[in-house]
Amino acid sequence: MDISRYIINSLLTGSPMPIEIVYWDGTVSQYGNGCPQHRVTFKSAAAVRRLLTGISLGFGEGYMNGEIEVEGDLQQLLSLPSQFGSGNGRLSFFTALSEWAASFRNRNALSGSRKNVSHHYDISNDFYRLWLDHNLQYTCSYFTDPSVDLNSSQLKKMDYICKKADLKEGQTVIETGCGWGGLAVYAAKRYGVHVTAYNISGEQISYARRLADEAEVGDRVCFLDADYRNAEGSYDRFISIGMLEHVGKENYRTFVDVIKRTLKKGGRGVIHFIGKVTPKKGDAWVAKYIFPGGYSPALSEVLIPFEKTGLNVRDVENLRLHYAQTLDHWARQFENEIDTIRETFDERFIRMWRFYLNCSSAGFKWGGLALYQIIFTNGLDNTEELTREYLYSNKPDRAQWNFLM
Amino acid sequence: MDISRYIINSLLTGSPMPIEIVYWDGTVSQYGNGCPQHRVTFKSAAAVRRLLTGISLGFGEGYMNGEIEVEGDLQQLLSLPSQFGSGNGRLSFFTALSEWAASFRNRNALSGSRKNVSHHYDISNDFYRLWLDHNLQYTCSYFTDPSVDLNSSQLKKMDYICKKADLKEGQTVIETGCGWGGLAVYAAKRYGVHVTAYNISGEQISYARRLADEAEVGDRVCFLDADYRNAEGSYDRFISIGMLEHVGKENYRTFVDVIKRTLKKGGRGVIHFIGKVTPKKGDAWVAKYIFPGGYSPALSEVLIPFEKTGLNVRDVENLRLHYAQTLDHWARQFENEIDTIRETFDERFIRMWRFYLNCSSAGFKWGGLALYQIIFTNGLDNTEELTREYLYSNKPDRAQWNFLM
Repeated sequence: MDISRYIINSLLTGSPMPIEIVYWDGTVSQYGNGCPQHRVTFKSAAAVRRLLTGISLGFGEGYMNGEIEVEGDLQQLLSLPSQFGSGNGRLSFFTALSEWAASFRNRNALSGSRKNVSHHYDISNDFYRLWLDHNLQYTCSYFTDPSVDLNSSQLKKMDYICKKADLKEGQTVIETGCGWGGLAVYAAKRYGVHVTAYNISGEQISYARRLADEAEVGDRVCFLDADYRNAEGSYDRFISIGMLEHVGKENYRTFVDVIKRTLKKGGRGVIHFIGKVTPKKGDAWVAKYIFPGGYSPALSEVLIPFEKTGLNVRDVENLRLHYAQTLDHWARQFENEIDTIRETFDERFIRMWRFYLNCSSAGFKWGGLALYQIIFTNGLDNTEELTREYLYSNKPDRAQWNFLM
Repeated sequence: MDISRYIINSLLTGSPMPIEIVYWDGTVSQYGNGCPQHRVTFKSAAAVRRLLTGISLGFGEGYMNGEIEVEGDLQQLLSLPSQFGSGNGRLSFFTALSEWAASFRNRNALSGSRKNVSHHYDISNDFYRLWLDHNLQYTCSYFTDPSVDLNSSQLKKMDYICKKADLKEGQTVIETGCGWGGLAVYAAKRYGVHVTAYNISGEQISYARRLADEAEVGDRVCFLDADYRNAEGSYDRFISIGMLEHVGKENYRTFVDVIKRTLKKGGRGVIHFIGKVTPKKGDAWVAKYIFPGGYSPALSEVLIPFEKTGLNVRDVENLRLHYAQTLDHWARQFENEIDTIRETFDERFIRMWRFYLNCSSAGFKWGGLALYQIIFTNGLDNTEELTREYLYSNKPDRAQWNFLM
């Protein structure tokens, strides 16, 4: 048996899910019992050997380059780890695959990281418009029913965040990491708040400014092409959606210090980020191809700096399956637009993107990824609402505590 | 200036809240500006000097023994720390006061701790019946409006917990630390579940068994006079209300291992416990007079062992002001029944209890105490409900995910 076959054999012997491996010379091996639902073709011995340098890196590169081909449902293939259970070293192959998706969208926001963000988000607004919703929400959507479409659910998501932040007319809001400005514009238009929004992607900022003008809230929304760490001022509300994953674990204390500095005492904040059920380190493929240093944290890793600085957690919700559903929408829309995408992007990029969307979805369904929304206050707010019912009803009034501070 | 006056001077110079101190010889000092709303009388120099051996221990003992007298609103006096802000060493006097209340009800559940639990809970069922609600819920209540009475709000609390646990007819439930059995009986009666409940207070268990028989659910509820660490079996749901504070920080991993062992894979659990916004060590007075080793944790301290063992957090809610309201109800009812209580208990006990109820309330309002409810699953549940709306409505149907595991 040559080394390549030996590697595959080591990885897959004992697989509970039947799988067929096709080698570069046309020979075939089967693993597991029953009729294989998946066929993985290695077009060269090198594609297998590269797994040795790092399984997820090797598989990710091989898939991108077309040296590795997958037939059958890609997400199901990547769901193997949960079906195996955990702690079986032979399965790091597939475990690693679902992990790299976890950290794919993380990027290190160290000073000078503008280039890294640009790499991902400045690809072209037109590209994202092909497969995102109308409001260009490149973060987890919120579905009240599995049949709700992506546009409606992303509108609902924006409204849900505004409700969680308890926005009221005339308040000032700081948003760090505002994407294409959809939430800032929505909040200004619907809730009558004044938003100051930070982003370091030039393409996104330009788009966001046009959006605010078109929505006639240009006077109430200020988009700043600046790092969130430079944020100044004092605001009633703090919102950050899908940015903590960019920040890097070593910068959480800095992130929290920005909140403490800019959020008024007793003021409320909402953060929304990709996390993990269990703390794990990032992925080699991501570090090489996407951004160095990004990290999707376990909940405790975020809460420790919150606790040290007296940010008081009021509510945490894990919406992981909403992100799986969101990614499935994106993946379908991506394939619907594949002909248009091919006019601009090469096959390697397309394969990378397809793999990324499907792996990420599998990660949220089966791989221990999480989507956390946290509501907190800077210190204590003794006038907070008694229950969370207001998030789910349109009653104008709600009971609030009123304990003297 | 004698040493006792020097101590008081050190503690109170700079107080932003006007306060009057009366010494054993009738001399008076005032601190802060304006008309004092509070008068604290030290009836001996020893009562002041004892503060040196540990401020909260000394003050707690002095108040219990009647050597220290407080005129004016006790809770307001204890709210000084939040009005001072933090980090002022001279204020540890009052800071410590609100902290000891935090950990008052904690007790160490080390093996052989039966005596400690007995000390607090076996005082007499009759005593607790005087000032608790009809269902003897000695844990945080749940108010949908501040005007709701204690009986109604405790019923609502039990129902809220059952909803959070997603109880369905025929399911098996394990409850660790079941108090007088109110929740177990309610769940069996209303939700048709089979409950196995653990407690190590003999008086409570006897009461709970009678309660179940009276409610005609004796065949569906099994009360075990046994330590939760001995729990065996496999259950659909895990519930623990107000017990984690008893467990002691060093035993969280054991607690989590009991959950992992007894809760089916994909099964749901709810825990409800007193915590703190910021991690802090326990109190000297409590260690001496109540139980050694109990601890009210910061959220991250509980989540770390959850994450290590793959318990997946779905929802966290902080109900701290509900506990303040609950304690205010208890304190009022305690005073309403003071004549009856005096027939059985001495003045020292009564002063201790009054101080405990008021200090605890102040701790939840102003002192950084928290009441956390966590919903979690053992591993992943891919059929979970999409939104939390079902907790706040009586619609029979709710949308659920259905992603193949």
